[in-house]
Amino acid sequence: MTGTYRGRFFEDFSLGETIPHGPPRTVTEGDCALYTALYGSRFAIHSSTPAAQALGYQRAPLDDLLVFHIVFGQSVSGVSLNAVANLGYADCRFLAPVYPGETLYAMSTVIGLKENSNRKTGVVYVRTEGFKEGGGRVLGYVRWVMVRKREPKAPVAPPEVPTLPDQVAFENLEVPEGVKVTAQNVDHLHGGYWEAHTPGDRIDHLDGMTIEEAEHQMATRLYHNTARVHFNQHVEKEGRFGRRIVYGGHIISIARALSFNGLSGAFRTAAINGGAHTAPSFAGDTIYAWSEVLEKVELTDRNDVGALRLRTVATKDQACEDFPYKDSEGRYDPAVVLDLDYTVLLPRRWWLAPLSPSSS
Amino acid sequence: MTGTYRGRFFEDFSLGETIPHGPPRTVTEGDCALYTALYGSRFAIHSSTPAAQALGYQRAPLDDLLVFHIVFGQSVSGVSLNAVANLGYADCRFLAPVYPGETLYAMSTVIGLKENSNRKTGVVYVRTEGFKEGGGRVLGYVRWVMVRKREPKAPVAPPEVPTLPDQVAFENLEVPEGVKVTAQNVDHLHGGYWEAHTPGDRIDHLDGMTIEEAEHQMATRLYHNTARVHFNQHVEKEGRFGRRIVYGGHIISIARALSFNGLSGAFRTAAINGGAHTAPSFAGDTIYAWSEVLEKVELTDRNDVGALRLRTVATKDQACEDFPYKDSEGRYDPAVVLDLDYTVLLPRRWWLAPLSPSSS
Amino acid sequence: MTGTYRGRFFEDFSLGETIPHGPPRTVTEGDCALYTALYGSRFAIHSSTPAAQALGYQRAPLDDLLVFHIVFGQSVSGVSLNAVANLGYADCRFLAPVYPGETLYAMSTVIGLKENSNRKTGVVYVRTEGFKEGGGRVLGYVRWVMVRKREPKAPVAPPEVPTLPDQVAFENLEVPEGVKVTAQNVDHLHGGYWEAHTPGDRIDHLDGMTIEEAEHQMATRLYHNTARVHFNQHVEKEGRFGRRIVYGGHIISIARALSFNGLSGAFRTAAINGGAHTAPSFAGDTIYAWSEVLEKVELTDRNDVGALRLRTVATKDQACEDFPYKDSEGRYDPAVVLDLDYTVLLPRRWWLAPLSPSSS
Repeated sequence: MTGTYRGRFFEDFSLGETIPHGPPRTVTEGDCALYTALYGSRFAIHSSTPAAQALGYQRAPLDDLLVFHIVFGQSVSGVSLNAVANLGYADCRFLAPVYPGETLYAMSTVIGLKENSNRKTGVVYVRTEGFKEGGGRVLGYVRWVMVRKREPKAPVAPPEVPTLPDQVAFENLEVPEGVKVTAQNVDHLHGGYWEAHTPGDRIDHLDGMTIEEAEHQMATRLYHNTARVHFNQHVEKEGRFGRRIVYGGHIISIARALSFNGLSGAFRTAAINGGAHTAPSFAGDTIYAWSEVLEKVELTDRNDVGALRLRTVATKDQACEDFPYKDSEGRYDPAVVLDLDYTVLLPRRWWLAPLSPSSS
Repeated sequence: MTGTYRGRFFEDFSLGETIPHGPPRTVTEGDCALYTALYGSRFAIHSSTPAAQALGYQRAPLDDLLVFHIVFGQSVSGVSLNAVANLGYADCRFLAPVYPGETLYAMSTVIGLKENSNRKTGVVYVRTEGFKEGGGRVLGYVRWVMVRKREPKAPVAPPEVPTLPDQVAFENLEVPEGVKVTAQNVDHLHGGYWEAHTPGDRIDHLDGMTIEEAEHQMATRLYHNTARVHFNQHVEKEGRFGRRIVYGGHIISIARALSFNGLSGAFRTAAINGGAHTAPSFAGDTIYAWSEVLEKVELTDRNDVGALRLRTVATKDQACEDFPYKDSEGRYDPAVVLDLDYTVLLPRRWWLAPLSPSSS
Repeated sequence: MTGTYRGRFFEDFSLGETIPHGPPRTVTEGDCALYTALYGSRFAIHSSTPAAQALGYQRAPLDDLLVFHIVFGQSVSGVSLNAVANLGYADCRFLAPVYPGETLYAMSTVIGLKENSNRKTGVVYVRTEGFKEGGGRVLGYVRWVMVRKREPKAPVAPPEVPTLPDQVAFENLEVPEGVKVTAQNVDHLHGGYWEAHTPGDRIDHLDGMTIEEAEHQMATRLYHNTARVHFNQHVEKEGRFGRRIVYGGHIISIARALSFNGLSGAFRTAAINGGAHTAPSFAGDTIYAWSEVLEKVELTDRNDVGALRLRTVATKDQACEDFPYKDSEGRYDPAVVLDLDYTVLLPRRWWLAPLSPSSS
């Protein structure tokens, strides 16, 4: 390598190209302790090795979102160092659980490219996948980002926009291998049952969490995410907001940790169907969250675990007892910072439930 | 569970009732590293595995106060989510040492209830006990908190106030099993001897430590303590102080870490006899501490370790060379934030000491 | 120990005296995770155990600078608690790699003493060495500090100033035993080659990192560094700068982490030849860095790894595209906070390189 790596510009991406990321990241109990300190998440299988083992895990796995952040972080240098905006996520599935001591690496494939009409920027669609060393895939998702061109006049390939699913199909949700909820182990989850939730239910997660600069910086560095807007006040003070912008994933993790109030049974994030960071967040903002149950689905071939598709909305500096979301014209309430559509798994009262019909 | 859990109100507690807490918490080297980063504690057995093993520990145990905070944190959701104030502690004994990899869980028993005359609040007395999975008790203590009533008119049980000891009896102090100080291992403690201290001695711990919001929030989340006043600036800016309140235990840990200056031999916190947070602390406060030796006692049947009962006083924004405490009318100096009565163990110059007479 | 330890004053040091430090510090994966969260360093061998093992390490070793900070931190209490200023470093060699689970201890030898003409202070030169329990030396360096006298009139020994090398001789650089770069493992380094760099090259490391109080305090406490100026705003607000001063080593670690942009191949810090903290840093400062390749040297008897001697300059609140350093009269640009002369190891394109001639 000669000179300093300045990241890819829009014209540097080719359709179908595979971008390896790196360096890999061996995750440890230290990362998990920091995750707890940063978000206060209390879901049992991530807090307690005996609870996790009783459910069929090898030991307490990493929080699913910690895995997401680390894979995402690895992809920043190769994909989004010159991004103007992170536009969206789709088709994110959480696969094998990740344990302390395992090593994560990631790669991205360019699945779409579309120059903007101003020719100064373009949208890059990538499918990013995370793997564990000596093991399989742990995560896969699509994201699209608006990336600057180095030269507005540089020629680019014809536009190609991928077709993306509105949501991860329920039959594609993965329960980690060996995990089974039984009468003997369900109490280890310390959470509520799938049956207690009904589509249309709205849940105020009550608590608010104020973000500090040191917290989001430590989190974002832990994920090896090098996007500059999160770290450099000297530049950002002259920027659009006058402040460092908090990594959007930090807000997702705060909202998920808050959701323990009311969704304590949601022991696994199985998919992210889509998500938007509807407004930026900054240090000093207090994040609240509420959730709506969008769908409630049985899993094929098993009656111990069920899925809920949720919309979790996070706000800043506004409590959520009135469930702030959009106005009658579909515009977000200005307090809303996150609109996340995702699917979680909860234990079922299986003794009341017939076995779901097999899809085969 | 349906709806969001809002915590127990005064009328929800019954005398004699047992409240299980959870989820359990597997503690790790990550938690220990964070504890070091948050407080800078340098006591040898928590810093060095070879030192701890030389003394008879399996490996470096968690700081006693880290164990306290985790057990306390687990109890917040079941006991004090609707607390107005944490009124006091008594009869706190530290029992088996806790090692990284072990899992802590906790439960509380209601041992007293007394409605206040305004009928809006009442005092709840609980004995909280911490256990390790597959092992015994690691901690037990009584605390009493003022808790709001959901309905002022709700009927309540007749008042019952428990009798609590002024201090943990010296014969109830526990030296961890297998731990013995000898001529061969005493240097591993890197600390001073019990003989060097005399009742009435006052020790200025010299250093001051300024608290940051990110620090106390990370600490309090690490302990799974969900009390809202520590985290939500959006609400607290309208509150009595206009700011987030620092978890009282954070001040205790700062004071204990500072006490290494002058009490470096105090390798174990064996008991907390009583304690009061005499004023709230906030980010930006600089905490100082000083200690007075209240009593100096030999332990039954052993001459390798002795006990000191200490009063450690923490102040904010005032150095302690003049030992600020109370005025002639018994009112605390306004700089005082903590008045802690506790008992520590130190190594003895056993070769000068006759064996203490057996209590049997 | 009676009374509170207030640290050594200039007249308390004797030439040739050995000062043991303590307590030792067992380092863990928790320390490594915090280091990542505090600096965001991405060098592969510290991030990934498989990468480190492929290169010949037992597992991912601690960042060399984390080892430096912990050894330095242990020396503060015995050497520099009453220091007015940390004047310089020399002859710093990094020896055996350090792995999580190992225990570090340190000692210093007084190798020079020179009272200042005002008789209020003097310069103490120490050689500090770090060891691992049951193993050998991990680090050795000389530093000199200006230390207050307790009594200006106290008599002192005749002045003795040691002769120090301008740089660590290249033949004294240590490649960890068993580490060898080969065609099979070089990709694990995820970094650039030694051949890509040429003496005189200047590299802008691009990114800026804003320091927060909570971050530098957590770092400095993690290192058991008890120097008061870093922690006590109540005193420092009346001091020369009105603020807490950031531990100089924190700036070195930020600069090293930033240097991944352009020096990603520099997998090991082998020596620090000299360094100066040319101005203090404070929370709120944004640190940038650039490097110049001073020398490029083959190592004796091996062609898989080569050395670069670098000057890395860190600035505050000024980007480094113009390589700010000194003016024509040799005065530092006011933005410069660190001028560090050190030597790193990078992989070579060994298949192009003849074996370096043996020194024997």
